[in-house]
Amino acid sequence: MQPINRLIVPAIAPLANPKLERQLQHRVDNKTKPPGALGTLETLAVQLGLMLQSAAPCISQPQVLVFAADHGLVAEGVSAFPAEVTPQMVHNFLQGGAAINVFARQHNLSLRVVDAGVNADFTPHPSLIDRKVRKGTRNALHEPAMTPAECQQALQAGMALVRELPGNLLLLGEMGIGNTSAASLLLARLGELPVAECTGRGTGLDDNGLSHKTHVLQAVLARHADAQTPLDVLAALGGLEIAMMAGALIQGASERRILLMDGFIAGVALLVAERLAPGTREYGVFGHASAEPGHRHLLRLLDAAPLLDLNLRLGEGSGAALAYPLLQSACAFISEMASFADAGVSGASA
Amino acid sequence: MQPINRLIVPAIAPLANPKLERQLQHRVDNKTKPPGALGTLETLAVQLGLMLQSAAPCISQPQVLVFAADHGLVAEGVSAFPAEVTPQMVHNFLQGGAAINVFARQHNLSLRVVDAGVNADFTPHPSLIDRKVRKGTRNALHEPAMTPAECQQALQAGMALVRELPGNLLLLGEMGIGNTSAASLLLARLGELPVAECTGRGTGLDDNGLSHKTHVLQAVLARHADAQTPLDVLAALGGLEIAMMAGALIQGASERRILLMDGFIAGVALLVAERLAPGTREYGVFGHASAEPGHRHLLRLLDAAPLLDLNLRLGEGSGAALAYPLLQSACAFISEMASFADAGVSGASA
Repeated sequence: MQPINRLIVPAIAPLANPKLERQLQHRVDNKTKPPGALGTLETLAVQLGLMLQSAAPCISQPQVLVFAADHGLVAEGVSAFPAEVTPQMVHNFLQGGAAINVFARQHNLSLRVVDAGVNADFTPHPSLIDRKVRKGTRNALHEPAMTPAECQQALQAGMALVRELPGNLLLLGEMGIGNTSAASLLLARLGELPVAECTGRGTGLDDNGLSHKTHVLQAVLARHADAQTPLDVLAALGGLEIAMMAGALIQGASERRILLMDGFIAGVALLVAERLAPGTREYGVFGHASAEPGHRHLLRLLDAAPLLDLNLRLGEGSGAALAYPLLQSACAFISEMASFADAGVSGASA
Repeated sequence: MQPINRLIVPAIAPLANPKLERQLQHRVDNKTKPPGALGTLETLAVQLGLMLQSAAPCISQPQVLVFAADHGLVAEGVSAFPAEVTPQMVHNFLQGGAAINVFARQHNLSLRVVDAGVNADFTPHPSLIDRKVRKGTRNALHEPAMTPAECQQALQAGMALVRELPGNLLLLGEMGIGNTSAASLLLARLGELPVAECTGRGTGLDDNGLSHKTHVLQAVLARHADAQTPLDVLAALGGLEIAMMAGALIQGASERRILLMDGFIAGVALLVAERLAPGTREYGVFGHASAEPGHRHLLRLLDAAPLLDLNLRLGEGSGAALAYPLLQSACAFISEMASFADAGVSGASA
């Protein structure tokens, strides 16, 4: 099999647009409030305006995608929950009982589950998108998690499925027992960080479990010391859901969709996407600071400040969905608030 | 005039209810997610359940109240904006053009403006509750901001108006040019803190303005060195909107309503309310960490952790309204998420 040398990615337009940015900032500054008083929401409004190329940005038809897959590395005892939980949770998503279902209903978000590589067969369901590459990755302790062809297939499927979706905002989440391990491996290699600093308790390992997981991940990295290009790293260490999400992110950015990121694993998918298609990250908005310790490294690498800090560590897109109303608020204030002139309100003294 | 020695306050039931708390925690722990994975939202769900005395807490008919008043101390040049902005912003609220209007519409929150003491006459409006005590406080540099009778009137009006409102959640905000000064004074005296550490730029003072404001506030505190009981402190240093909000908070807590707090000034009203009617604070949920520097002292005094940290410093209840969907999410997940047993999902290994 040939190593993958390149991925054909769509063009991603840079966000920078000084004229529109001045126009947005002017609108923000003339609203009936002290300058800067809406803090982060003001920065966010300008960002969303640049992404959507509008001085009155408006979110339409937001789509939640939950990418699910299994991980061969789970055989090494890196997770507190058994692998069977991945398909069980897919059923739970399809039945509407998971956290992301609750938050998606609350905010009228369309939700679909993408089977990128779950180790189970599902009957067709209107909310399930079947893009299964294989029933879980291989065990990365012994061989690359994906072949180059599987990795390409996952990336391409992610790009293709976003092309079919309406709307201008994606909320990206994941489910996959073992996927904090894959994310930690990718972060350590791509970020040139000690893997111990990128590794956390995932779904709830105790101290012994965390120590064991860290040792396994160190051995996996040593086994794949030669994997150094982003595509080789992704194939050797990644997960099918992470690869497919990276493809979705690249496609989303190329279509100027807002990419509302969940926590650690989604963030790693964005790091991968940015390395494969520079510029993708500019379309990212960061929903929350995860309790997974690697997330702070990731946020630094991506130069990202998350909106929420609620000690969440669930995944599924839950942190993205919880942050979503803040994006709506940013769009609403810039469109609906009165200006000083509109409202006849006096300004500050010079 | 006699000093006020006491305020007759309604009884406030303590939140503690170990049986219900165990029941709530059990529900939270059996949802299909790793234990603790929803972080702060889990704590919040338990808190809301205790406040509403229900294992399936549900918010009904949330009410935003924006308390507005003017401040005699503005004559000393303590604000970047002129006093006429208070009535102008009341008109803006009534016309629906302010930030709080936008966020209240977004979240279907009923909004009313309470005229506690604005220095203007308003024509009647369905969203305006006229409880004007007088047209602004007196200048606290020279005399107590309120007479004891005015302070009592403001507190009683706040209690009475909450008795008339439906629903089980109050979002409390304020508008009043000069009211960060009143809040800083109250915090410094009640919290026994250096006033310089309680004083910030308010609506946007520059360095000279901040230095001048701090000197004025030091002089006001010296002038009222004898004011030490909570009621005397409130009358000497407070604002009519702060006093009326404190009354509303006390009444709200006595009716077991959730008190969703905005930032610095609303937080000071809760500190005042807690000193007047111990137990009020237990019904407080803290919307956001304000950019006003005194807020961190206040949060420490109230042992409070805010939900959002978005560098907001607007007031009006805007930070409470932005946090509101997180309270809905907390109620929704505890009611709607499937349990492990419901969904047939395996638990963690022991």
